[in-house]
Order: sequence, then C-alpha cells, then structure tokens
Amino acid sequence: MTTFTNSRKVRIEWGDCDPAGIIFYPRYFEIFDASTAALFEAALGITKFEMFKTLDFAGFPLVRTHAKFIKPTRFGDDVVVESTIAFGRSSFEIEHRLSLNGELCAECSEKRVWTVRDPATGNLKSHPVPPAVVEKFQH
Amino acid sequence: MTTFTNSRKVRIEWGDCDPAGIIFYPRYFEIFDASTAALFEAALGITKFEMFKTLDFAGFPLVRTHAKFIKPTRFGDDVVVESTIAFGRSSFEIEHRLSLNGELCAECSEKRVWTVRDPATGNLKSHPVPPAVVEKFQH
Amino acid sequence: MTTFTNSRKVRIEWGDCDPAGIIFYPRYFEIFDASTAALFEAALGITKFEMFKTLDFAGFPLVRTHAKFIKPTRFGDDVVVESTIAFGRSSFEIEHRLSLNGELCAECSEKRVWTVRDPATGNLKSHPVPPAVVEKFQH
Amino acid sequence: MTTFTNSRKVRIEWGDCDPAGIIFYPRYFEIFDASTAALFEAALGITKFEMFKTLDFAGFPLVRTHAKFIKPTRFGDDVVVESTIAFGRSSFEIEHRLSLNGELCAECSEKRVWTVRDPATGNLKSHPVPPAVVEKFQH
Repeated sequence: MTTFTNSRKVRIEWGDCDPAGIIFYPRYFEIFDASTAALFEAALGITKFEMFKTLDFAGFPLVRTHAKFIKPTRFGDDVVVESTIAFGRSSFEIEHRLSLNGELCAECSEKRVWTVRDPATGNLKSHPVPPAVVEKFQH
Repeated sequence: MTTFTNSRKVRIEWGDCDPAGIIFYPRYFEIFDASTAALFEAALGITKFEMFKTLDFAGFPLVRTHAKFIKPTRFGDDVVVESTIAFGRSSFEIEHRLSLNGELCAECSEKRVWTVRDPATGNLKSHPVPPAVVEKFQH
Repeated sequence: MTTFTNSRKVRIEWGDCDPAGIIFYPRYFEIFDASTAALFEAALGITKFEMFKTLDFAGFPLVRTHAKFIKPTRFGDDVVVESTIAFGRSSFEIEHRLSLNGELCAECSEKRVWTVRDPATGNLKSHPVPPAVVEKFQH
Repeated sequence: MTTFTNSRKVRIEWGDCDPAGIIFYPRYFEIFDASTAALFEAALGITKFEMFKTLDFAGFPLVRTHAKFIKPTRFGDDVVVESTIAFGRSSFEIEHRLSLNGELCAECSEKRVWTVRDPATGNLKSHPVPPAVVEKFQH
C-alpha cells in the first residue's frame, strides 16, 4: 500500500447552496470527484483528459463512498480539501478531508476501481492499476 | 418549417434552489435540456440513448440560447414545460415555456444543430437533420 | 422505531451523465435528497416547502451517508427509488434502493437530523422530531 | 453608465461534461453566475455572503440572458472568464466572455436586478443599486 496526498483550495459558491443557506451536500461529492482528478494530476503530471489519451484507462468509477458532514459551509467560504490515496490491486481508496480555517467540516472515503474498455463488448471492466501509474505516487 | 409541441410536468426540488429560496437559474437550463430530449422522445418514440444507437446522430449541441425569467419558482412547485420545435436544414429552434398554475414563469429559445461523428477526426460536425426524423414531427 | 416506505420513478437524463456515458454519481445524491423529500410528502401530505411554513422545522441536514454503486445507469433509464425511514429521537435513518428493471443498481443510507432555528442566534440546531410528524409515518 | 471588468480562471471538470465528452451547457451558467459574484467581490472587496450581511441587498436575480456557444470545452481545460458590468438604475448588464488559450468559446450577456426584501411581505423587490456600490466600480 502506497499513500500520497494532495491539497487544493475550493470556493463554495452561491449556486452550491440551498435554501437553508448552506452547501447542498451533493455538491460536496462534485468537489471530491474533482479532488480525486486533481490528485491524479498532481502525481502523474497530466490531466484526466490526457490520461484517457495516453493510458490504458477508461475512468475510475466509484464503487462505494462514506461521508460525514460535521460543520456546514456556505457561499464565500474558501475551503481546503486534502486528499490521500492508498492503492490496492485494481482498486484504490481515497480519503478527502474538507476544512475551513483549519476546522474539519466534512470527510469522505471513496473506493474506486481502475477500468479499461473491454474491446469485445465496449463496456467498462476493472483492471489492475498500471504499475507505471502506481509508481508515480511513490515520490 | 414544421412545428411540434410536447408538454411535461417537472417538480422543482429543494436542491434546485439557492439561498434566496428560489430556483437557481442554471437548473432551468437542465430542465430545458431534458425537455428537448423529451420532445424528441415524444416524436420518435425512442429515448435519446436509443437515438445514438439507431440513428446517424452524435448529439444536438446548443449554439445559442435566450431566456427570460419572469416569475421565480421554488421547491415544491410542479411546473409545466411546453416545448415547440421548428426545423431548419441542419439546425432547429426550440421554444420552452415554463409555467406554474397557468402563469408563465420563464421562457427560453434554443438553437441547436444536429451532429454526427466525423469518421476521419472523431469530432462532431453538423449535418442535415435526417428527413426520416423530421417526418416524425409532422403528425 | 417506526418504518415507512415510499417509492418513486426517476428518469436518468443526458445531463446527469458524464463522458463515460453513465450517471455522474453526485447526481444520485440529488436523486436521493429529492426522494427523502418525497417520502415526507407521502407521509405528511404536504411538500417540504409547506413543512417550513406549518411546522417547527428548519430542514433535515445530512450528518452521514454511505452509498454503494453496484451497476451503472445511463440516460434514458427509468429507475425506481424505494426509500424507507426509521426514526430515532432527533435523528432518522433513511435507506434508498435504486433499481432498474428490478435489478439493484445503487443503495444509500442517510442519517439526518431534524432542525429548528435557534431564535437567539438564527442558526440551525437539532431538535426532537415532533411526535405529530412521527405519527403520520405510522399508518 | 460605468464599466468594470474582472477576469478569473476556471477548470472544466469531468463532472461538468456530458456523454459527448464536452461541457454540459447549464454548467456554463453556473460558471457565469459565480463570475458575476467574483466581479462584485473584486470591486467591493467583500464576498456575496458579506454583501447580504452589510448591504441593503437580497440578491441580484437574473431577468434575461443570451448566450452563444462557439467552440466546446472539455474536462481538463483551464478557461478564462472575463466579465464586464455596466450599471443602469436598479438593473445592470454583465457580459461574460469565456475563452481557452485566447480563443473565444462562449459568450453570455445577463440582465440582473438589485433586490431588497420587502419588509411588509418578505418578498424580493427590485431597488436602485446603492450609489456606494456603483462608486466602487468606478476606479
């Protein structure tokens, strides 16, 4: 198991918030999904778009997620999302910790699988994460 | 020019609304996009997914839209969207009228192009709307 | 503990799907949030908007959610979401099961708290679910 | 009439894109709405959240928008949104130009009204933009 961490800042927007004036929680999952892409970009030095072009890769769909919402955030907040990855064989686990001014507001764990296109059916199928990808996370 | 109208009911949800307690206007465009798909489904008898499978079709991206927001709607409102199409050659115009209890709340016009995949480049390119498609709107 | 179940049909739309052609998973949480509102509406006979007007109620924010994604769905799919609630004192648990043609595609559990506005601070605070609300779920 | 311009960079995300692999156009309106908020923040030096706290302000809902989509963008693109405002009395016009590598991809004009809460009814009503606000845009 290898771990690697990336951190990014996100502005919570008016349109992310609901009539209670706080973030509508599905928006957190949009933020976490983008944070996972940013983490791969930080390690590999290429965007997710380029991953599709240059790797044997058809996406890393989620198979399971757990999330806790500890303190609400609201529009105008500049939150920090710290994301950590640990690789299994054809799957990996990501932990996201979203905080505001150093205070933890939400945390989320994801289990995702590396997929490739099955040339026979055109469908996605899980596949071991390429060793060249895992290696990039080991610095 | 051929016209055809379809109508559908949409519930405005809590998560569609912003801290002012009214619909966040980008959600209207999500509703209108789905209303355009519903209009084709009503005429062709197949879903947009099936259009990709069975027609020379790669989507009908928007090239232009105008919208007016007359009265806000809010979560719990059951609105009606009436959508009318008029075909050009490789483009078409759709008018959406969204109303609540018979009162017009928003209206939107869209210009879209019929596209196919360019086999050489893999990119989308505009293409005349297949006559067999236009015909289905003529009843 | 009291249980109550509601079921509703949801169309997966083009705009809910990502470049892999399948639903972008944060959209499931939008669907589940609306399903929770629909479940209360089924039991109480009033919309969430009317709950704010007529009950001592300031929303039921999520404190925790777990979800499993078993089979992807895609635009054009008409899925069924079955939602079951079980009440604690000031919190409740909801299970959502989303299926397509009888096959389970995703499941999600939510823990939410009933909140009211603290008159002193204007902030949300948790509060026992009003007995008159819980009773409505006991038929 | 006073004009003022602000510019910001936005990453197009995987979850902003549809099965055609390009941005789902309602996401552009989310970007433009946040760009309008960013423009006020640039001029006033406070977030939209703080505007609600410190100004006679209840939001600036859209009354009309026109948009043209010239070239699609896709996940991984870092686009620039340049936003320009011109004030009327109780309304203002904003032009957004979204470009990638210097090439214009989308443009949008918005007409919005400054609103305050009507103390009698609790509803939003339009109101002249406070002169102290307009002045901040005149540097």
